[in-house]
Amino acid sequence: MKVSTNIPNPGTDPTRDSLSGKLQRGDLLAAGCPSREVLRHVTSRWGVLVLMVLETRMHRFAELRRAIGGVSERMLAQTLQWLEGDGLVQRIAHDVVPPHVEYRLTPLGVEAAQRVRGLADWIELNLPRVLQAQARRAARPRVQASSAAARRWG
Amino acid sequence: MKVSTNIPNPGTDPTRDSLSGKLQRGDLLAAGCPSREVLRHVTSRWGVLVLMVLETRMHRFAELRRAIGGVSERMLAQTLQWLEGDGLVQRIAHDVVPPHVEYRLTPLGVEAAQRVRGLADWIELNLPRVLQAQARRAARPRVQASSAAARRWG
Repeated sequence: MKVSTNIPNPGTDPTRDSLSGKLQRGDLLAAGCPSREVLRHVTSRWGVLVLMVLETRMHRFAELRRAIGGVSERMLAQTLQWLEGDGLVQRIAHDVVPPHVEYRLTPLGVEAAQRVRGLADWIELNLPRVLQAQARRAARPRVQASSAAARRWG
Repeated sequence: MKVSTNIPNPGTDPTRDSLSGKLQRGDLLAAGCPSREVLRHVTSRWGVLVLMVLETRMHRFAELRRAIGGVSERMLAQTLQWLEGDGLVQRIAHDVVPPHVEYRLTPLGVEAAQRVRGLADWIELNLPRVLQAQARRAARPRVQASSAAARRWG
């Protein structure tokens, strides 16, 4: 498979100047770019949390499930398959009875997990500020029509 | 609204040592923590792309829609409402005819967008490596049973 064939030209959109000339890289703003699928896996409801937990160390399936509050067995398995398919997670099945399977990040996965943790850390750390913003918004009078909004903001 | 009341104690899970003692921050691994909802908004299918585009400059709705390939009007409006509700995006309606509405990041949104871009940049830049991993996996013989997996990996 020739890697570059599926990657669209980043194009000449002025908002994407910093990316132009890098034809080998993906373009998340292009609807058909396969990077969209990788983003979907990595930022899926459980993908973020799986990457965060695996960044600390290798985990067995049951350990992962315990570490991530609320994840179902089915969704955890699906998420691990996505991340394994993208080369971010390695599934290691030891040849013992009973079966002993572990999951760990690949070197590519370690890199992705670092970026994911950057975002996750920010959200955890700044949750009080977000909750304050939500509270301020809830306390404001509801504005429905755009003309009313224009009066308020104008 | 007292901000701290909805934030669970990060607990004593050894994988979360770096977070312990910071009771004011969220805990994404806890099922009931409101940080989960913020993560869902920020990493939603279009949330990542809206933050990326707004980080470059203020945009009108139609400009945003053109910049983000494939987004529907309904989903873009929903995403903007989420981000506005979390205090990350500000909607500015100018008092003119016809109505002129713009969206820009708040200072909080700029911080979030920087982290989101860190992840998005990594995905775009490393898409070739992910596609190579996907191709390698597709070329491997399919292994269904865990015993067969154990033979391959053991």
